[in-house]
Order: sequence, then structure tokens, then C-alpha cells
Amino acid sequence: MFAEIIAVGSELLTPYRLDTNSLFLTAELNRLGFHVRRKHVVGDNDEDVREVFAGALERVGVVVSCGGLGPTTDDRTREIVAELLRRKLKLNDHVLRAIQERFRALGRTMPDLNARQAMVPEGADILVNERGTAPGLWIPHDGKVVVLLPGPPRELQPMFVQEVKPRLARRGGDVRLYTRELRVAGMPESEVDQRVSPIYAQFPGSETTILAAAGEIQLHPRVWSADESAAMKLLDEMTERFRLALGENLYTTSGETLESVVARELQEHRSTIAVAESCTGGMLAARLTNVPGSSSYFRGGVVSYSNDLKTGWAEVPAELIASKGAVSAEVALAMARGIRRQTNATIGVGITGIAGPSGGSAEKPVGLVHIAMAALAPPADAQHEKEKAFRFPGERERVRLHATQAALDMVRRYFLRTAPPKV
Amino acid sequence: MFAEIIAVGSELLTPYRLDTNSLFLTAELNRLGFHVRRKHVVGDNDEDVREVFAGALERVGVVVSCGGLGPTTDDRTREIVAELLRRKLKLNDHVLRAIQERFRALGRTMPDLNARQAMVPEGADILVNERGTAPGLWIPHDGKVVVLLPGPPRELQPMFVQEVKPRLARRGGDVRLYTRELRVAGMPESEVDQRVSPIYAQFPGSETTILAAAGEIQLHPRVWSADESAAMKLLDEMTERFRLALGENLYTTSGETLESVVARELQEHRSTIAVAESCTGGMLAARLTNVPGSSSYFRGGVVSYSNDLKTGWAEVPAELIASKGAVSAEVALAMARGIRRQTNATIGVGITGIAGPSGGSAEKPVGLVHIAMAALAPPADAQHEKEKAFRFPGERERVRLHATQAALDMVRRYFLRTAPPKV
Repeated sequence: MFAEIIAVGSELLTPYRLDTNSLFLTAELNRLGFHVRRKHVVGDNDEDVREVFAGALERVGVVVSCGGLGPTTDDRTREIVAELLRRKLKLNDHVLRAIQERFRALGRTMPDLNARQAMVPEGADILVNERGTAPGLWIPHDGKVVVLLPGPPRELQPMFVQEVKPRLARRGGDVRLYTRELRVAGMPESEVDQRVSPIYAQFPGSETTILAAAGEIQLHPRVWSADESAAMKLLDEMTERFRLALGENLYTTSGETLESVVARELQEHRSTIAVAESCTGGMLAARLTNVPGSSSYFRGGVVSYSNDLKTGWAEVPAELIASKGAVSAEVALAMARGIRRQTNATIGVGITGIAGPSGGSAEKPVGLVHIAMAALAPPADAQHEKEKAFRFPGERERVRLHATQAALDMVRRYFLRTAPPKV
Repeated sequence: MFAEIIAVGSELLTPYRLDTNSLFLTAELNRLGFHVRRKHVVGDNDEDVREVFAGALERVGVVVSCGGLGPTTDDRTREIVAELLRRKLKLNDHVLRAIQERFRALGRTMPDLNARQAMVPEGADILVNERGTAPGLWIPHDGKVVVLLPGPPRELQPMFVQEVKPRLARRGGDVRLYTRELRVAGMPESEVDQRVSPIYAQFPGSETTILAAAGEIQLHPRVWSADESAAMKLLDEMTERFRLALGENLYTTSGETLESVVARELQEHRSTIAVAESCTGGMLAARLTNVPGSSSYFRGGVVSYSNDLKTGWAEVPAELIASKGAVSAEVALAMARGIRRQTNATIGVGITGIAGPSGGSAEKPVGLVHIAMAALAPPADAQHEKEKAFRFPGERERVRLHATQAALDMVRRYFLRTAPPKV
């Protein structure tokens, strides 16, 4: 069972905008049992639009498009597809009233132009648009189907889920896609690849994609199967093998972000965290607070670019900065300890480094980052502390992202080893 | 002069990865005088790859592809295109030696598989790959040209600039694309649209795209012209008309980010800034420090989630928080004043609000954010202060991004009105 996706709109052929709807549509189509065979982007040009729909209909059973349903004269997808499929367009009073009502609710009168959006090809189902004026269209044709959706993601997504999904589910094959999302931190891509590629080669009914981001590798094993429980069993087996090969570098098998995993650990252990950042400039705090409910574990953070603020906010002794330098293992650890004490958190994190492009030297090059954590020690126990120096590649933004990832991973690994003290 | 772009690779037909090379390629092609007519994504499937190249070659003079040049058996772009154009593939010793050398430099022996990457179609130019093993190929054919590029952006981009651009420049028409990038803050999209659309309608030789992001609208006026100075003059005229219509909401005509514009103002006025953030959790500090050289103007920042840290780090009186609530105009302003004093900066910014999803009430709903700034006042002058309440739409991440944008914009507008005090 195959589908193709067509994105219509001249703005998608400029250097400024990508078709992102196709990622959402692909995920949904896969779950319904449809492989995406090709994706197309065409401008608002009758000949190209016609040709791309005609070609797709020759190859596959389901053609889904987005865009070109707006009220302006550029938006011609509806008309061109109706003509291609030899359907007359008729004004649908029900749709027209709904559009007029929408404008009325906003205190405006419907411009005449918008009446075009109420034109419906013969034999088509109307797909209700809860969030905009353009209805979608479901047009069955010779045992195949053409689905026209509006371009804005906030209109397209609910329309697909509510209107298209149930209709497509009745057409989908028995073979569906089952998938997992594994994420790995603290291991370079080449090593992940070396460890996992011999594994997935042993599961011929599956495909596995490896994607690399800053400080993170994602593995996407996928199984197409008519038998849900067999597919799940296969994915469980693969996941288990991956887990053995990757060890504790594997931090999720369900696509969670690293900050979400750290947030969960903090909450489960009733721990709290505070951060003192230099070169990452607030990015670590921003990631930790991007998780809803973060106020339950995030105590606070400081961005202490200058030495006096490292001393004032994170209790780093001025003599230490003078003797070791602001970018040093000792200062990172002092920042972690100091911010923990200052905020009365159970865990403190300190980051100091050189993000570039300038500020590097032979001894302390751009990309050098010291990361440390300090946890409140239980009575009569040694301090729970860790410090590590990294040398991250790439530009300023990439170095900073890498550093936040490494810091989160350090906290995650701490929870793997240690039952942190209750406070 | 038209071109089409083909992205080859089954991973681009999964829900996990988009073809992003086409944005770079489109910008470059446009500057060389080529319109992009269509974009295609195909998987590693001989029939589809063949068909999409054949179709594109029928329509346009320049076909650029990325991906499918790797060493594995999936990567068949080279072979399929050679067959389509009826060219024999020959092993090129020079390329083979370069690939072997690359492996040797990494201390490894070239796997036999990689020898495929040294196969070159008859009549093709080899495009040197500085950063990978796969060379690109320039294949002239019946007055047209097919350009095969590797998929990884860090390989593709320098190859395009160094190897493809000079060759294409000799083929490009006289008509080139000239463009500007205007950015607008502090004005809703519908109002920007209302003000600018009557203007660009008066410039028939141009196209203008409007894109909306969180707290920002971008305008891209574009002119295709054989006459550079006429195009520049037209763009200057359009830009001037846009400027008049948008006033000081327009913050750049050259595509700068808002944080870069604020950074420049700070540097030009020898001002420094410090921030105290609650709901934005470090994002504002992260944006301000993402600009290279930020240590010259960024003093420091605190993320004071809890009330005691608002008091400790940003000198907000505990009584004020008790009487007005942590999310209030008074507390935002006290944060701005306090962080400025604490860090001895010339400008302090305070943000407090409710990013959601929980924590809202009827009186203080999710999305409510108070933003304030306080500047060091010259002697015998009133305090330079500003405070504003916002109600941002959308999810947590969007509210937070909106809030950082509004805060940066508040600082930018301050510099428009005020010659800030020297310190």
C-alpha cells in the first residue's frame, strides 16, 4: 500500500520555507499501513500541479496534498484536481454558510473571494476545518483516493486526525508500521553504528535508521507487519539487543528528550537541581525548565559570565579563579558546589568553557568545556561529585548545545549509579 | 532559466528527516539566475530515481540532486543516472587514490565497497569533495546539465560553492534574483499584512513572501532582473515604502536576528545588560549570549524560579511578592531594577509569567507574562524604566519564545528613543 505527498505553494520553492507537513503526514500514513513512495513540492502553476497529481495517481493508491486551498487566485489546487478527475465543481451552501459564520464570529463580513472555498467537486466528501475557512476534500477516484488538505499545520493536523484517519483506516492494508525511538548520549556516532549495525542486519524483517544530532544519536527500528503482536515481539527483541550493545549510553526507548529523562529522575528521587553556567549562557537552565512542571525540581540558575559573578552567585573563591583560570576543572566544580549551596538544591551543575569563535588559546582551545556536578552528600558519606573536560567540535551554537547535552547526561548517569540522598 | 532539485534517500521518506539541502541550493541557484521549478524526494529505488531524473530533464535545463553517492549498495544515484544518460562508468584512478588517501590519513584501509565512489560516467567532470569520500559529478547532456552532489550538508555546501557555482555561472541567464530580508517585531501578522500588501502590489516586477514566527514577521521582497542596479533601486524603493508603513516595528532590512540588533545597540552605546528570568527559564540569557562577543555587553543572568531566589539574586522585596504575587508588574520591574544593581549593568530586564500548561488561574491565565526593563539613570534624570503585560498564545515553548522576543524588542525600542547613559 503506497501513498505520495504533494506540497503546493510557490513559497515552498523559495529559500525560506520547507514543507514540514510531510513529516506529520508520513508518521500518520505509516501507522495506517501506507508507505510513502515519493514527496513533491510544486509552485502555484497549473501545469505543474496537474502533472504531479496525474503522475502520483498512476503510481499509488493514496495521494495527499497540502496547500493551494486558500481564497486567493493563486490557490488553484481544488480547480485543477477537479478538472484532472473530470468532476464538476458545485457551490456547497452548507460550506458557504460555515465560512460566512466564521467571518461573522470575528466581526467581519466574508469577502467575495472566499466563496471559492465553498466549491466542492462532485462525489467528494467535505473534510471539516475547525481552525480555518478552507475545508479539505476527500475525492475517491477509480478505487484510489485524492485527499486535499489546507497548508497551515494547525489546520491540517486536526483535520487529518479527525476526518482523514478514519476514512483511510478502512482502506489501509493489514500490514502496518510499528516503530521504536531509541536515543543514545555520550557515545560517538561511528561507535554506535559499529555496535548496532551487526544487530539490525540480523533482523531481516526490519529497517533501522540512524540519525545524529549534537551529542545524541537516535535509532529508529521499524517493522512492517500484519501481525501486531509479532511486530511488537520483534521490536522488543531488537530493543533488547540494542540495549545490551549500548549499555547505559542508551537513555530512552520511547523517544523522550534527555531533559525529560533527567526531570523524571529528579522527581522520582525527590531531588532538586540548580545550575551555574558560563559559556552555555542559560541554555542548560532553558532546557531543564522546558519540561512542564519543572518548578517542582528546578531551584534556579545563574549565568555568571564574569569572574565577580562566579564568586558572588556561585561562591567560587576569587583566588581559585586567579590561580586556575575561569575555564578550569576546579572552577567548574566550585560552581557546581556553590550553586547547590546557594539554592539549597540537592544537585548543583557547573559549566565553564570556550564556545568561540574567539577566546581560544593553544592551551585552552575553542570547544574546551569543563562540566561538573556536586550532589548533597548523605551524612558521613563522601561528597557525590564528578568533573569532566570535553573538547566539542563545530561552531559556537553547536559547542553550547553539546555542552548542555553532556551536562544533562552527567546528571542522568549519576542517578544510574547512586541513590541520591533525600532532603 | 529553470532548475529542479532531487533529494535521494529512503530516510527522507520517514517521519524523522527532512531534505534541508534544498533551501541552501535554492538560494544559490536563485542568485545564479535559476528559478527552482519543482523539488522531489525519492527513496533508494531504481525505478523511482530513474523516473524522477528523466522527468526533470524533460522540463528544465539544470537538474541538481543530493544523496545516493555513498559506498553502500543502496546508494545507486551514480549508476542510475549514468544508465539513463547512456554513459559508461569508468574507474577513475585519480579519484580512487584520493579516497584511499583519505582513509590512510584516518589510519584506516579503504574498504572495497568505497571503490564504487571512484566510478565516473564518461564526459563527466569530477567535483572535488573536501570533506568526504564521495566526489560530486557534473554531467553535461544535450545542452542541459545534471549535477550529482553528496547528501551531508557539510560536504555539499563547500562543493557547491567551489565547484558548481563557477560552472553554473557560465550557464546562468542574465536575469538574476535580488532580494532583501526585512524583519518586524511587536506587530501581529494580520496588521503587517494589511499595511504591506497594498505596497508590494504596486511593484509588479517583484514578489514578496510573508512568513510568521513567534513574535516576528519576515518579509522577503524578491526581484528577478537582468539589470542589477535597476533591481537594487526597485528593492530600495520597496524597502523604503515598507519602512514608512511599518515604522519602528521594522528592526532590520538585512535579515539580522533580534538579539544581534540588540547586541549591536548595546555595543554602540557601550551599554551592558543583565537579566532576571522566571518563566523563560534562561532562554533570554541564552539568546543574548548566542551572539559571538557577547561577553562585552552581557553581565550575567539569573533564573529565579522560586520567590526566595527572586529576593536573594534580584533584590525583589519579599513583601512585594507577598502583596502583589510573583507574577505581577511590580515584581517584574523590581527584578529588572534588582538584577541591574546586582551586576552593575546599565540595563536590567525582568520577566515573570505563566508559561503553562498548568499554574494558570482566571485572574492570571496561562500565557500572561510581565516584562520590564530598568536602565541606569543619568544623574538628576528620572529612572529609565518600562513595564508591559502580555498575553501570549500557544503552548509552553511558544509562550516562552514569545516572551524572550518581546523582552529583546523592549530593549531595542528603548535605544530608539533614548541615548542611554554612559558608565
